[in-house]
Amino acid sequence: MYLPRDIEKVINHFSNLPGIGPKSASRLALAFLRIDKLIVEDFAHSLVNLKNNVTFCNKCYNLSDDKLCGICIDEERSENQIMVVEDVLDLVAFERTGQYSGKYHVLGGLLSPMQGVGPEDLTIDKLLKRIKIIPGEIELILATSPSLEGEATAMFITEQLHDIPEIKITRIARGVPTGADLDYTDKLTLLRALENRTKMPQ
Amino acid sequence: MYLPRDIEKVINHFSNLPGIGPKSASRLALAFLRIDKLIVEDFAHSLVNLKNNVTFCNKCYNLSDDKLCGICIDEERSENQIMVVEDVLDLVAFERTGQYSGKYHVLGGLLSPMQGVGPEDLTIDKLLKRIKIIPGEIELILATSPSLEGEATAMFITEQLHDIPEIKITRIARGVPTGADLDYTDKLTLLRALENRTKMPQ
Repeated sequence: MYLPRDIEKVINHFSNLPGIGPKSASRLALAFLRIDKLIVEDFAHSLVNLKNNVTFCNKCYNLSDDKLCGICIDEERSENQIMVVEDVLDLVAFERTGQYSGKYHVLGGLLSPMQGVGPEDLTIDKLLKRIKIIPGEIELILATSPSLEGEATAMFITEQLHDIPEIKITRIARGVPTGADLDYTDKLTLLRALENRTKMPQ
Repeated sequence: MYLPRDIEKVINHFSNLPGIGPKSASRLALAFLRIDKLIVEDFAHSLVNLKNNVTFCNKCYNLSDDKLCGICIDEERSENQIMVVEDVLDLVAFERTGQYSGKYHVLGGLLSPMQGVGPEDLTIDKLLKRIKIIPGEIELILATSPSLEGEATAMFITEQLHDIPEIKITRIARGVPTGADLDYTDKLTLLRALENRTKMPQ
């Protein structure tokens, strides 16, 4: 015990978080010594609140502190556009763009037979039920990652909906990311970027 | 507000910690949803405790929850060997080796005229006073980093003690780190490693 017990405890707690090694844990714990006491208390308080109050939205499975999340109750957002994402972090990433005004559906993972994740482990059945009761035309934007599991999940969902032709199913574009160095970009990405080329505004 | 307020708060708090960007902050905050409630409460509790109870050791300026830290009150550790380190993280690094059985002195920084850090901003005067009242021979191990500031600080402390010849002042060795790839090692490090070569046990 070369450090006070309270510091050791905070270091241990931090090391148990994903992506935090023992060195970062020490650095983070010590950083709290320089933070204002009221802010630390507020931090501690919000951790407990987060654990007590946050649950899943009954409709889209985003995080929520009520039955329905802030996005689902937002009447300014279109009900007829649903973006399907793997997890809440992906939802956050799209929300940060500030340009999407539809709703979401959070799958809670991707299909992965290797890791034993089947359709019953995700919220796919809830998505299908949800879609069936929406009146009018629907666009389902499949925004799972362009990985093996992401593509398989997108394909699985598409297959489940083949008998409802009035649903327009789209997939986020594959291409070269902004700022990419083309000679470091993999062949498949370049190929997709070429295939999906768009017309320049003239 | 696309996420519950309590999550947003935790994300904001995390983003204010050093080395945590907005993406890591989201990831860390969401990780708490999967952690047992009792553990989260204990985490929150220890953050507040850390802020309330942790202060600096009056002798070596390590962190402590009492007037003297755990290392200073440990009678099994030699009073006559003092390792001078920049900050508590360096002390922790040396303690992790499990092989050092002397005491420490935490400077609270390094001399840096560029950043306006002078001797009066560090605990150097306290180190000098502390050394003068220790009976018997003393070894002062200067374990500041091998940077410009670290070397300057080590030299400054050495100069301050030139009138007390009974103090043995040593500097941690410069050389090649364990596992280093020699052809990627800089010239100065290789030179020091050669100069400070040690005899093989035969």
